[in-house]
Amino acid sequence: MTKIIIDAFGADEGPAMVARAVRMAREKRAFEACVVGPEASLSLLNDLDGVEILPTDEYVTNEEAPTFAIRRKKNASIVLALHRLNEVGDVLLSAGSTGALLAGGYFITKRIKGMERLCLAPLIPRENGGLLLADAGATMDTTPEMLLQFAQITALYAERALGRANPQIGLLNVGTEAEKGDKRTQETYRRLEESGLHFIGNVEARDILTAPIDVLIADGFAGNVALKSLEGAARTLTQILKGALLQSFKTKLGAVLIKDALKEAMEPFDYRGHGGAPLLGARKPLYKAHGNSSAETFALAILEALDFAESGVIQRITEASEEVS
Amino acid sequence: MTKIIIDAFGADEGPAMVARAVRMAREKRAFEACVVGPEASLSLLNDLDGVEILPTDEYVTNEEAPTFAIRRKKNASIVLALHRLNEVGDVLLSAGSTGALLAGGYFITKRIKGMERLCLAPLIPRENGGLLLADAGATMDTTPEMLLQFAQITALYAERALGRANPQIGLLNVGTEAEKGDKRTQETYRRLEESGLHFIGNVEARDILTAPIDVLIADGFAGNVALKSLEGAARTLTQILKGALLQSFKTKLGAVLIKDALKEAMEPFDYRGHGGAPLLGARKPLYKAHGNSSAETFALAILEALDFAESGVIQRITEASEEVS
Repeated sequence: MTKIIIDAFGADEGPAMVARAVRMAREKRAFEACVVGPEASLSLLNDLDGVEILPTDEYVTNEEAPTFAIRRKKNASIVLALHRLNEVGDVLLSAGSTGALLAGGYFITKRIKGMERLCLAPLIPRENGGLLLADAGATMDTTPEMLLQFAQITALYAERALGRANPQIGLLNVGTEAEKGDKRTQETYRRLEESGLHFIGNVEARDILTAPIDVLIADGFAGNVALKSLEGAARTLTQILKGALLQSFKTKLGAVLIKDALKEAMEPFDYRGHGGAPLLGARKPLYKAHGNSSAETFALAILEALDFAESGVIQRITEASEEVS
Repeated sequence: MTKIIIDAFGADEGPAMVARAVRMAREKRAFEACVVGPEASLSLLNDLDGVEILPTDEYVTNEEAPTFAIRRKKNASIVLALHRLNEVGDVLLSAGSTGALLAGGYFITKRIKGMERLCLAPLIPRENGGLLLADAGATMDTTPEMLLQFAQITALYAERALGRANPQIGLLNVGTEAEKGDKRTQETYRRLEESGLHFIGNVEARDILTAPIDVLIADGFAGNVALKSLEGAARTLTQILKGALLQSFKTKLGAVLIKDALKEAMEPFDYRGHGGAPLLGARKPLYKAHGNSSAETFALAILEALDFAESGVIQRITEASEEVS
């Protein structure tokens, strides 16, 4: 049975929420788990078969320098969880510091042979199916070679973990023509054209939410800017809309009339509909849950992480990497 | 009197719209103009004192390679306009190809001594006053030195043309800590700290619409991605909202009740409230109007371009540049 290693620290709501999420996920499907965190908060799990508690009260915060913290805090939940993953686990899930997970990926899980860097590939929610953005900010100063590798592994993930046959790949750029962009992007365009992947060309940032693609390849800096710009615009416009709807009795009455239709129309964009994002390129599946996860969202992240583990993506990447080298 | 040189080609609505816009702007304030374009479409301007028509039927399209077109099409409206600017003009305005304006800036207007590159600095509309984003995509593969120059000239523009005293400057980055980002951004952070400018630190893309800054500095690639991501998110969310409001009789009734409040709340974000963006770093003021300008927006762009010319920004940058070199 698939065994998931769960870092119980790091979520805003704390380890007790994680314990509730594990129970919720177990009601959906069978799996084994090792939950790393404070014993008292995890007592809810004591009666569950196949769920082991690895007790610790130490953890890495978002404020710490990740590489330093990973090396120094031997009993931090993420460090213990990563070692447990190496020993007996099939996938690791954490809502804690992305930097710590990344540093742990490099220094404890280690990279797949031939993979130069790791990439974070969150699903951007859209009306007609989400889009995987790789890299969303795990790696800075990427080379075209790294971006080509990100495209290869994210395409495999899209195909095997999300069930997208022959995933279509776009390259984030400042215009649609092949010669557009900075040197890195121009060279990456050429590499993608020759890659044998289903590369459909450049995608401008204004078309991210509508372009007919499954995977968007971007340098970690630009990818992070795109993702957070979309988030920021959505947040601001939602606040403006809410403010306008609460302005007077008249607008409040209007709000009642449009509420259901609006909620339904916005549903595909709800981040709570997705639990987290894979960190790709390490020797075992690493999965990042949102820091502000509710028990429902974290339970979803558990199910997504199990799918990731069972998809065989990492094994396939490892094989492909060995074929090349 | 300030003399504006106007390229009448390039706007979707065509030269006749530009002629109407010139008349509208003249009703607001006095200026001299040289309008470059097809004589027949500009006949509306024949009776205006101080408005000269420079007739041509040739122009550069958005599809042409800009540098090649600028050099080859000697009678293209933008080429004639740029030469006229050199001879007798105070500022140039064009709604045509940004690439052609940029190429013309380099090869005809030429750079201010010491300025390595040009930057495009559009105003991003926000609830509490807009924000100048430099560079929005004029220059690729920028160095920290170029970005420092962009910060200096855009701060001067914010102060003199927009009346923002002691403008606050932020740096677009993937996190708020000084050590975040790629090598270019880390080095730019250090340069900005030592620059004597009012630098307040890194700004994440999700905070662009709310951060307390007047100028956001970004590499042209990332700046373009941020701008277009914001545009794309706004477009998609607006479409979703419209769709939801038109769904049924009930929602249409609700729409009537909230319409005015929503329109008012969205007004600060209306791109039609701004006519265009300065292209900074050239020896004379260059101003880019939106390709989809209406006569009202183009008239606004004329007034903004005149403000730009009269602000003395270019003269001040030239002096500052000479002090350094």
